[in-house]
Amino acid sequence: MTETVQRPTLEAVAARAGVSRATVSRVVNGGDGVREPLVERVRRAVEELGYVPNQAARSLVTKRHDAIAVVVAEPETRVFADPFFALQLRGISKELTAHDNQLVLLLTEGRDDHARVGRYLAGGHVDGALVFSLHLDDPLPGLIQRAGVPTVFGGRPGWSDGTSGVVYVDSDNRGGAREAVRHLVGLGRTRIAHITGALDQTSAVDRLDGFRDVMADVDPRLIAEGDFTPAGGERAMRELLDRCPGLDAVFAANDLTAAGALRVLREHGRRVPEDVAVVGFDDMLPVAEQTDPPLTTVRQDIEEMGRLMARLLLRGLDRLHPDEGHDPAVGAPASVVTPTTLVRRASA
Amino acid sequence: MTETVQRPTLEAVAARAGVSRATVSRVVNGGDGVREPLVERVRRAVEELGYVPNQAARSLVTKRHDAIAVVVAEPETRVFADPFFALQLRGISKELTAHDNQLVLLLTEGRDDHARVGRYLAGGHVDGALVFSLHLDDPLPGLIQRAGVPTVFGGRPGWSDGTSGVVYVDSDNRGGAREAVRHLVGLGRTRIAHITGALDQTSAVDRLDGFRDVMADVDPRLIAEGDFTPAGGERAMRELLDRCPGLDAVFAANDLTAAGALRVLREHGRRVPEDVAVVGFDDMLPVAEQTDPPLTTVRQDIEEMGRLMARLLLRGLDRLHPDEGHDPAVGAPASVVTPTTLVRRASA
Repeated sequence: MTETVQRPTLEAVAARAGVSRATVSRVVNGGDGVREPLVERVRRAVEELGYVPNQAARSLVTKRHDAIAVVVAEPETRVFADPFFALQLRGISKELTAHDNQLVLLLTEGRDDHARVGRYLAGGHVDGALVFSLHLDDPLPGLIQRAGVPTVFGGRPGWSDGTSGVVYVDSDNRGGAREAVRHLVGLGRTRIAHITGALDQTSAVDRLDGFRDVMADVDPRLIAEGDFTPAGGERAMRELLDRCPGLDAVFAANDLTAAGALRVLREHGRRVPEDVAVVGFDDMLPVAEQTDPPLTTVRQDIEEMGRLMARLLLRGLDRLHPDEGHDPAVGAPASVVTPTTLVRRASA
Repeated sequence: MTETVQRPTLEAVAARAGVSRATVSRVVNGGDGVREPLVERVRRAVEELGYVPNQAARSLVTKRHDAIAVVVAEPETRVFADPFFALQLRGISKELTAHDNQLVLLLTEGRDDHARVGRYLAGGHVDGALVFSLHLDDPLPGLIQRAGVPTVFGGRPGWSDGTSGVVYVDSDNRGGAREAVRHLVGLGRTRIAHITGALDQTSAVDRLDGFRDVMADVDPRLIAEGDFTPAGGERAMRELLDRCPGLDAVFAANDLTAAGALRVLREHGRRVPEDVAVVGFDDMLPVAEQTDPPLTTVRQDIEEMGRLMARLLLRGLDRLHPDEGHDPAVGAPASVVTPTTLVRRASA
């Protein structure tokens, strides 16, 4: 342990400033009702002594910590392996730092730890939470709701019925999928397959719905289930080639899935895009640029989505500056769905 | 925001259990002096109502949060790009989770945010801190010491004089470097160069010292300064070849540096290991296995170092179970230096 240095007390500040304990306390907690010269004297004494108010005690009064939790409902190992989280965290970190709020990332080993995360959130250590990667049967949202902590979700939660006041930031998964499939139709492709993502996540369900919007009467054998991983993409691509050897295009639920599918197509001697055109989703770099051939895909601005989540939460907590677009008439913040764009490379 | 559900109060628990408010409070804070049947009744009421004690209030009494902060004194982007941190975090996460302590990772955009991190640590939200990657002139250690939070450092802090009660976990950088250079000497190499790490970090200084222990009268032109990155390794290797074209071995301060050096050697038509033997440090996978040729290097068990840091901190907080080796006679925990091993592959 480091040697514990005696922390300066409220009493020491009061003595130094020549004021009462109560005056110091009022200044530290916002300064209401204290004359400016006294406020100045207290501030100087605080600075000279390096006084840090005991926030556990202080937060009982102010109920404010200037700290926001980020919870990713995935094991710690996946958080660090998946570039998606790193990008969203980058956006969140920039936005919170710009408003001098501390980013508090709560890591877990797995679902067994979610109760402990709920306790920490309920324990009065943060002002709000940003929560990611919820699967349909996850107990975490219930724990967070019980903790009474203002929350913004990353991605539309599957249990949200759209009326319960849940706020989330999501990208237009369904619209992006439609654009991808319309692009394949525009290239003259007629036997278009889809490899889905993990169907216990709304992003996968929405992309499948977008595919079906365009391919209304699709042969069900042209849809194979993946899980957002390259291995899942390989497995699904083999199934599809087995069931429908005449397919001429594939819309993959994300870029990692597409990378797996491309490997299997090459293995089977199919030329991309001549024989089979392939479109992914995410525009995750460097993956999408380094596939062979480089991947046509649906871009979502992942870092910006993180920034927006932080912004919505801070707005709800009334932490944005007046010139940053808080309109009291608007009331509570609403969910945001961000647009997607098709990025054309060589694969379709 | 999620709808805020009314949290059950202490009063509600008291009413449900048919006991006084004070009794509930005593049970929630440890149960001392309350008869067992009453404790049971309160526990049942707590469970039925889903009562979560207000930890801000409770921690004023118990001063315990079951939460440990991890602070990496590097920008958030580097934390996620460097596999070293991911490995140490894995070890920390496993150990904290095994003892039901929440891992609270505090991220920053840069050094300007360190004061805010100090405030959060001082604010009574965690029981201790694990702190990484300190450069010689970093203000963070002072802030943490002032916050009065028990701390274990990752790597020996440069400002520690070894007597101030600072506790750290480090690997035997000097011993490992000696072993690497002795291996090169054993191969019959006589003109052995060294590319250093960033010399404002003790690990780089210690590895340089280990190199000098073996090569006492080394020509100073055989030492070039790097910065632990592949680009720094390339730059330093070019300098070395320029100054000492006859060199026959290189000890690089880490594997990333060695990877850069190998590229420049190949560019200059030097065969490895025939013309120039190369040894790295870390055994960072997959880097060390994927260089051409695969890298002989000094292994340190990075995940285990993270585990040890968490263990030392929990021991200092008296959180380990009695059978986990806490010996009250030992007193405060002491720093640990973990051993290294030479791993032979093709490069030397």
